Amino acid sequence: MIELFATEKLKSLYPKVKEFVEEELYPLELKMVNGPWEETKAMLDVIRAKAKSAGLWTPYLSEKEGGLGLSMTEFGQISELLGRTPLGHYALNCQAPDIGNIELMHQYASAQLKEDYLAPLIKGEIRSCFAMTEPEFAGSNPVNLGTTAVLDGDNYVINGHKWFTTAADGAAFTIVMAVTNPDASPYERASMIVVPLDNPGFENIRNISIMGEEGGGYMSHSEVRFKDCHVPKSNLIGEAGTGFMLAQQRLGPGRIHHCMRWIGICERAFDLMCKRAATRELRDGKKLGHQQTIQNWIAESRAEIDASRYMVLHAAQKMDLHGSKAARMEISTIKFYVADVLMKVLDRAVQVHGALGITDDTLLSFWYRHERGARIYDGPDEVHKSSLARSILKGYGI
Amino acid sequence: MIELFATEKLKSLYPKVKEFVEEELYPLELKMVNGPWEETKAMLDVIRAKAKSAGLWTPYLSEKEGGLGLSMTEFGQISELLGRTPLGHYALNCQAPDIGNIELMHQYASAQLKEDYLAPLIKGEIRSCFAMTEPEFAGSNPVNLGTTAVLDGDNYVINGHKWFTTAADGAAFTIVMAVTNPDASPYERASMIVVPLDNPGFENIRNISIMGEEGGGYMSHSEVRFKDCHVPKSNLIGEAGTGFMLAQQRLGPGRIHHCMRWIGICERAFDLMCKRAATRELRDGKKLGHQQTIQNWIAESRAEIDASRYMVLHAAQKMDLHGSKAARMEISTIKFYVADVLMKVLDRAVQVHGALGITDDTLLSFWYRHERGARIYDGPDEVHKSSLARSILKGYGI
Amino acid sequence: MIELFATEKLKSLYPKVKEFVEEELYPLELKMVNGPWEETKAMLDVIRAKAKSAGLWTPYLSEKEGGLGLSMTEFGQISELLGRTPLGHYALNCQAPDIGNIELMHQYASAQLKEDYLAPLIKGEIRSCFAMTEPEFAGSNPVNLGTTAVLDGDNYVINGHKWFTTAADGAAFTIVMAVTNPDASPYERASMIVVPLDNPGFENIRNISIMGEEGGGYMSHSEVRFKDCHVPKSNLIGEAGTGFMLAQQRLGPGRIHHCMRWIGICERAFDLMCKRAATRELRDGKKLGHQQTIQNWIAESRAEIDASRYMVLHAAQKMDLHGSKAARMEISTIKFYVADVLMKVLDRAVQVHGALGITDDTLLSFWYRHERGARIYDGPDEVHKSSLARSILKGYGI
Amino acid sequence: MIELFATEKLKSLYPKVKEFVEEELYPLELKMVNGPWEETKAMLDVIRAKAKSAGLWTPYLSEKEGGLGLSMTEFGQISELLGRTPLGHYALNCQAPDIGNIELMHQYASAQLKEDYLAPLIKGEIRSCFAMTEPEFAGSNPVNLGTTAVLDGDNYVINGHKWFTTAADGAAFTIVMAVTNPDASPYERASMIVVPLDNPGFENIRNISIMGEEGGGYMSHSEVRFKDCHVPKSNLIGEAGTGFMLAQQRLGPGRIHHCMRWIGICERAFDLMCKRAATRELRDGKKLGHQQTIQNWIAESRAEIDASRYMVLHAAQKMDLHGSKAARMEISTIKFYVADVLMKVLDRAVQVHGALGITDDTLLSFWYRHERGARIYDGPDEVHKSSLARSILKGYGI
Repeated sequence: MIELFATEKLKSLYPKVKEFVEEELYPLELKMVNGPWEETKAMLDVIRAKAKSAGLWTPYLSEKEGGLGLSMTEFGQISELLGRTPLGHYALNCQAPDIGNIELMHQYASAQLKEDYLAPLIKGEIRSCFAMTEPEFAGSNPVNLGTTAVLDGDNYVINGHKWFTTAADGAAFTIVMAVTNPDASPYERASMIVVPLDNPGFENIRNISIMGEEGGGYMSHSEVRFKDCHVPKSNLIGEAGTGFMLAQQRLGPGRIHHCMRWIGICERAFDLMCKRAATRELRDGKKLGHQQTIQNWIAESRAEIDASRYMVLHAAQKMDLHGSKAARMEISTIKFYVADVLMKVLDRAVQVHGALGITDDTLLSFWYRHERGARIYDGPDEVHKSSLARSILKGYGI
Repeated sequence: MIELFATEKLKSLYPKVKEFVEEELYPLELKMVNGPWEETKAMLDVIRAKAKSAGLWTPYLSEKEGGLGLSMTEFGQISELLGRTPLGHYALNCQAPDIGNIELMHQYASAQLKEDYLAPLIKGEIRSCFAMTEPEFAGSNPVNLGTTAVLDGDNYVINGHKWFTTAADGAAFTIVMAVTNPDASPYERASMIVVPLDNPGFENIRNISIMGEEGGGYMSHSEVRFKDCHVPKSNLIGEAGTGFMLAQQRLGPGRIHHCMRWIGICERAFDLMCKRAATRELRDGKKLGHQQTIQNWIAESRAEIDASRYMVLHAAQKMDLHGSKAARMEISTIKFYVADVLMKVLDRAVQVHGALGITDDTLLSFWYRHERGARIYDGPDEVHKSSLARSILKGYGI
Repeated sequence: MIELFATEKLKSLYPKVKEFVEEELYPLELKMVNGPWEETKAMLDVIRAKAKSAGLWTPYLSEKEGGLGLSMTEFGQISELLGRTPLGHYALNCQAPDIGNIELMHQYASAQLKEDYLAPLIKGEIRSCFAMTEPEFAGSNPVNLGTTAVLDGDNYVINGHKWFTTAADGAAFTIVMAVTNPDASPYERASMIVVPLDNPGFENIRNISIMGEEGGGYMSHSEVRFKDCHVPKSNLIGEAGTGFMLAQQRLGPGRIHHCMRWIGICERAFDLMCKRAATRELRDGKKLGHQQTIQNWIAESRAEIDASRYMVLHAAQKMDLHGSKAARMEISTIKFYVADVLMKVLDRAVQVHGALGITDDTLLSFWYRHERGARIYDGPDEVHKSSLARSILKGYGI
Repeated sequence: MIELFATEKLKSLYPKVKEFVEEELYPLELKMVNGPWEETKAMLDVIRAKAKSAGLWTPYLSEKEGGLGLSMTEFGQISELLGRTPLGHYALNCQAPDIGNIELMHQYASAQLKEDYLAPLIKGEIRSCFAMTEPEFAGSNPVNLGTTAVLDGDNYVINGHKWFTTAADGAAFTIVMAVTNPDASPYERASMIVVPLDNPGFENIRNISIMGEEGGGYMSHSEVRFKDCHVPKSNLIGEAGTGFMLAQQRLGPGRIHHCMRWIGICERAFDLMCKRAATRELRDGKKLGHQQTIQNWIAESRAEIDASRYMVLHAAQKMDLHGSKAARMEISTIKFYVADVLMKVLDRAVQVHGALGITDDTLLSFWYRHERGARIYDGPDEVHKSSLARSILKGYGI
């Protein structure tokens, strides 16, 4: 906890979550990394029940909705704790993409959609996914979208091809981004629509093999197809044509969540790196941590992780105080800055572990592989940098 | 100002200092960079008088002593403003090494030394310097010290060779670090002693030519010699043997000061870079700032400067709340982190300016040259990194 | 081919190998990356037969032994071609660790060992492995070795624990490094001994899961144990106590082989990156390759790959002309320089591919994961840098 | 010398030049760096005479013209030796911009211009300069040129504003780039014209203060103005409208010269760094060079300098064998690659020297300041990278 950001609520919650993560989840991690998801899932079900009774469930929701009413700044610090293990967010029902769908539907979905889809999602009875990215179009240009949803009576008929639909395998429904208003101005063409995955017009083509693993269940990213997929018009979230605006709404907090999770990963990798440095013997009494190069990596990692946390929490606080739009530049900044720090810290931690670092006997290989996407998803570094610079240069008249 | 660190006092003071810096000092900068110090000094004398009447003088001192009673966190933010011009700290009598000597003497000097030396220093009537570094010994090992001060009746007789005695040229006195207790344990051998520079045993050998300039007056760094230099025993600051402890006391706040000044330089260089990017035309309508490489530099600089400021202000606040010792690791961290950011931002700003960037027609060349020392003085990067890492690894048992 | 290094023999051979690689092997690559090894192996058996009839088999061997009598400099350039696909070296029987074992046994093994083990290895009828690294000891200090081989009559009795025994799964024999002369000086304690893997004292504990994959057959790295493993004394390679010297012999050419293979990977990744940049559309007519950041990566990669190739071929030529020992410093240099370039080029190629880059739909993810070890095996960067610097500083008297 | 590039001629010349540089020039360096140019120049006049009698003068010229008939590859290696001291090229009359002017005039100037200007330039009796860059236009776009030369009878009347006219102070003539054919296609508008500097239409506005120094004589860079400057039409070099083509001709070899000079600087800085590392004591017996960070810098510098040399010499050889145009991509590559290495090596050498490194007591500060331009002049990094990448991508169809 950062002194300045440690509210009373957080001071009470933080150690509980920390203990929960370390006691309940750390022992399961390598099993999950190496084994099939279903085995881990069964054990996690028990742990999720514990989390509920311990009052740790969905802490980002208001108390009325069964959460803890945390601000973005408070939840950010909890999210860092959860991020220290690949299981943390799932265990407390804070995992992407469900958390994003919950936040979105909570604010914009109809009462019926809330009852049918949001309520069981919050309880953790079902999982969901989010179908936005398309293989044929550069995701950095959100206006390019090939998927269409055409009104046919009371139904939308959806056709399109998506991939990186995270956690589709085993999910109950997806929110799909599709063009409903092709003649509107570019940013007002798309809408978000709920599609239950047992719909015959939906096909999960494959769990994409990513960095050596197809994964399964929650640990998967699918390529999917919508083929004359009929859903009731009432499955629309918000107004037709607001899809792009909703996506923006979704991304602001989403990027804070990602960044804090990455910082959690960094802290864990840092801890593993220091442990290894302190115990690996090079020769009589001389430890790896006595090497100056290793010391440099530890010091640089410490500085960069601290810098990341300060930046993200200040951005979260700005969002809490002034809203997502006011913090737009800060959010672009942390997106590329923290993703870069994550890669550097993981890479150093791997190197400090030597041959062990590339095995799956530690968590590092899992993160080294599966977090490489951090510099790509939700806007690649290049897009965020250009976007931030252009915002700044506007103030200089161009 | 960072929202979280903007006290009422600061909110009122900040815009005044900003205006003062921009209105009074910006017009003089290039004159100082290119001309002899004495000419600039004469004009600064007038401005210093204005600063006094405006109530901006020595803001880090308590109100009783003629300052504004700013906390470290508050002064840090003022210091950033002052750092945006090479003249800022001097104009408000906050310049190193005087500010360090003032802080030190205020806390540890005898009433007589205060009356004779500290009082006129605070008023800005005289300047001082600090003779610690020796050419023969690696500064990274403070225990190695060749200068000695031997008691001879009521006098200390000082012999030794120092360099990088900043601003000795024209100073009224120096504080010298010398071994008084050669038989004590390594960290209890040295003392700090006041030496007036008209002492016949003191010789200013040369203003060292640094990065192409010998400079002069306040803008100089001297090589000096003490040769059978007699000063009264009462010129000792604090107890004999406390020199190393006093140096540590001095360095904590000193590093915060440096870091905030560097951030000021970064912000100014960033502003110059953006201005150039927004105005330099490559071809019809296409500006330098439309190039993606330039945008990358702007975005990366923005991220790194913001990160630096958060880190330094949090360290300052820790120092305010818990004292210099508690913030020791944070201070090592900012020292190497911010110095590195400073170099990177200056380098990018130079490159964006093209040929203009290496001329003395902008401030950039001055800083590019004279701030290269930032990675060296007050402990080189390498020492701070190793020291931080060793502190961390202690927690892991080595 | 580099003009300066293009011998007549190479000019004739190079295009043949290039065509062979592109026509025969490129089509199989993704199958190998994604499928079980055994399926690919079956298809490779056919291709290996073709290679033999085409006269491309084991080109590094002398013509008398069925090779092409290539110099190190010539073979390096062929090796780069083979490195462009993960199947290249295997297809021509140039794959590690077999090539290292062949070179070693050819020079130092007894006639009987040659007949029993080397001959079928050269023909590609069997595979072999090399058991050196031990999990308990830092590989960067070769003197630390826990495995022992104790004479018992005409047998050695071997006990020890090894890992990263590459390609042990399915191999016919291993060469093991074990302490035979515990009382000798540190570098004269170990020996190399041939152990057939059907020996009851040998256990393949597991194919280690590395970067997400256990692999199998040739595509695996095992953890193995020797437990009272008896082999005839005549299985010793060379003299007892020469193991360390033989390992050095093995590593010199081995590092050239690795570096040239890495350059092949770099060229292929570079080609994939350029193809993607030239075809991926951002918006009407604007391609990814029109972005300046992408151009920077292409240009920097081009420079670094060219630099790598020049350095490695000059080192190879020095080895050809003056022997492995004379080129010791060059070999340390290329080991860390080229491994670093490999990581950078792969990372850029992944980023240019966006989401596609982290899938297993291209080769990039395979290399990104499995070549991360390049900075670790055969001496981590840190060891080679220190070792090179110390050699240089010896010339300055320390 | 690189084994592969060591011709018989070079083997005989190399040690002579090396000795000449070390014996005659090293002792004068710090005087030049710290003193007024005129004093050094007087001493260099004597040394230049010695160079002439020793047969080392203008070695890049054919033997008929008083040179040694070196190929680009041979001269590159001599140029590296000369680059090890800031005085080397001047001492043998190989200094820019004279060498460029000599190469250019030798090939394209009329017999009369050769007699009047080239002959005394080759003998070293006069110096020249080259007026191309204009403050108002981005140099990276050579088509933008504000200076005009309008025919008025038998005269050109030149009007324009230039800067970075290197060594104008004290030069006998300049070659100026001016628009003569404003209505031609963009690359055929400009011409090169010889202007004697005693022309009343020529004004040397100032020696620009660069990185803290205005310099003087050969060690200066001027801002100049042409105001109704009349010169005979016959002062045109080559045809009207060929200026851009001639500039390209000039730049190819010029960039090889620069790169080899930079490698010379790198080697000297490397030597200074190693000497310092081997002698600076941290504590009893522990030298700076025992620190792993310092060892990393030494090793990385060694690798990067070697890589640079290989790349530049292979580019030079390609130019020797196939002409400047064939080596265009290689030349862009070395321009940005070697400039970057130069900055890194100098920066490390400064850091290893600690406080001494930023003084003018070593050569490092001089190079750190005055070679910062290497990443800017003759095309900034950004332009060369984009240009190289675009050439590569053309092969991929865009």
